[in-house]
Amino acid sequence: MNVEDLIAFHEITQLKYRYIRAVDTQDRELLTSVFAKNVRTWYDSGKIVGHGRENAVATLFDSISPTFFSHHIAVHPEISFTSSTTAKGTWRIQDIVHFTAPHPNPSVPDLQGDERLIGAGYYHDEYVKEDGQWKIASTGYVRIFEAVETKLQQHGTRVRVESARGRLN
Amino acid sequence: MNVEDLIAFHEITQLKYRYIRAVDTQDRELLTSVFAKNVRTWYDSGKIVGHGRENAVATLFDSISPTFFSHHIAVHPEISFTSSTTAKGTWRIQDIVHFTAPHPNPSVPDLQGDERLIGAGYYHDEYVKEDGQWKIASTGYVRIFEAVETKLQQHGTRVRVESARGRLN
Amino acid sequence: MNVEDLIAFHEITQLKYRYIRAVDTQDRELLTSVFAKNVRTWYDSGKIVGHGRENAVATLFDSISPTFFSHHIAVHPEISFTSSTTAKGTWRIQDIVHFTAPHPNPSVPDLQGDERLIGAGYYHDEYVKEDGQWKIASTGYVRIFEAVETKLQQHGTRVRVESARGRLN
Repeated sequence: MNVEDLIAFHEITQLKYRYIRAVDTQDRELLTSVFAKNVRTWYDSGKIVGHGRENAVATLFDSISPTFFSHHIAVHPEISFTSSTTAKGTWRIQDIVHFTAPHPNPSVPDLQGDERLIGAGYYHDEYVKEDGQWKIASTGYVRIFEAVETKLQQHGTRVRVESARGRLN
Repeated sequence: MNVEDLIAFHEITQLKYRYIRAVDTQDRELLTSVFAKNVRTWYDSGKIVGHGRENAVATLFDSISPTFFSHHIAVHPEISFTSSTTAKGTWRIQDIVHFTAPHPNPSVPDLQGDERLIGAGYYHDEYVKEDGQWKIASTGYVRIFEAVETKLQQHGTRVRVESARGRLN
Repeated sequence: MNVEDLIAFHEITQLKYRYIRAVDTQDRELLTSVFAKNVRTWYDSGKIVGHGRENAVATLFDSISPTFFSHHIAVHPEISFTSSTTAKGTWRIQDIVHFTAPHPNPSVPDLQGDERLIGAGYYHDEYVKEDGQWKIASTGYVRIFEAVETKLQQHGTRVRVESARGRLN
C-alpha cells in the first residue's frame, strides 16, 4: 500500500458515504452524481436491478418512498485496485428502516406501515474513475439476515421520524 | 486531497472517537479534553444546548445518568477543511441506549426504566486546531428517527448491562 | 502521525475487517490467516478463551454454529504503535445475532432458537507484524450491554436468514 492508493481508497470511501447520504436523505441529484454513466445496481441479491445512471436512480426511488425513514451504514471497506482507474470492494451493510405507511409497491404486500426492518449483509461494489472522479460502476448487496418487526405501537414502541432526515435546515 | 489533509482527516476521526468514548464511558475528564474552549453543543436539533467547555460538559452530564447504558457510533465522516486550523464535517450517528431506571430529569417523563432507544441521524460538527491539537468547536445532531421500546422485560427481552461500560479494569 | 504510521494504521484496519468477515461468514481458513501464531483470545471479558492459533480458531468455532447468523461491526479504531512491529488498539463493537435453533453448547441453556441478540462493547486488541504482515496477537471484548429478545415470531417479527451470509456465490 502506497500513499497514492491510500488517497484513492479514501476518495472511494467519501464516494460511498455520499451515496448512502443520497439514499437516506432521498436526494435524487446527489445519487445521480455518484453513479457512473453505465452503472449497474442489483440490490438484495438482484431482486431490484438498475442499468445505466437514469434507470438506476429511477429504480431505487421506485423502491423507497417518502414514508420510509431509512438508515444505512456501510463499514469495513476492503477495496482493491484493478487498474489506475478501476477498483472493487466489499463493505458490511447494516440498515434500519421505519415504515410509517403501507409500501407503495403492490408487489410488497407484507409492509403495512408501523414496521421496523433491521438487516445486515455485504455490499459488493465496483468503482471507476470518470473524468478524474471516482464513481460507482456497480453496487449490490447480499443479506446475512433481515428481520421485520410488525405492529410496533401495539408492542409499546414509540417512533418519532423527522422530515429533515438528519439534514440541517 | 493531499497527504497533509489525509493526516488531518485522520486526526479528526481520532478526536471524534475519543469524544464518543467519553460519552459512553461517562468520562468527564476525557470529554473536557476533546472540547475547544468556546465549544457549542446543540444535541437533538438544539433541545440540549451547551456554550463553552465547562457548560457543555455539565449540560451533557445532566442529560445522562449512571443508569443509562449508551452506545453511540459515528461513521461516514465527510470532513472538509475551511482553513489550515478549521474544518467542518458530518457523520452518521446511530445510538442504542438502555435505560435501567427512570430518567433523572423530570422534563423527560416518558422514560421510566426498562426501555431501549434505537435512533439514527447526522452530526454536523465544526473543528478547530488549538495549541496544535484538533478540538471540537461545535457539535450537534439532527435525527432521521428515534424509537423507544418500552417494558422490555414484559416482552421477553433479557438485558445485561456492565458497569465497566466496555473498559478494561 | 506520519505517513508510515497512517499506512500501518490502515493495514491494521484491513486486518480487523478480514477477522470480522471470517467470524460472520464462518470462514475457518480466513480466521486462521489473521491470527498470530501465539494469539490469545478472551471474548466477553474472558468467558471464552483461546491460546495459540489452532486453539483460538477451534474455541471460537465451538461457540458459534451454522444456526447462528451473526453481524459484528468494529468501528472507532484507536490504534497506537508500541514499536515498529507491535501495536495495540481499541474498537467499538456492535453485534446483532439471530439464533435460529437451540445453542449447541449445553452450557448456554438460555438460547432456544428464535432469539435476537443486540450487544455493544469495546474490543481491546494487540497486533504484531509477523513475516511482514500485521496479525492479531490478542483480542477480547468487554460489554457495555447485551440484550436478548426471545420468541421473536410470537411478537410478530419475521426473520429471513441467508446461507450465503453476505457472500457472492
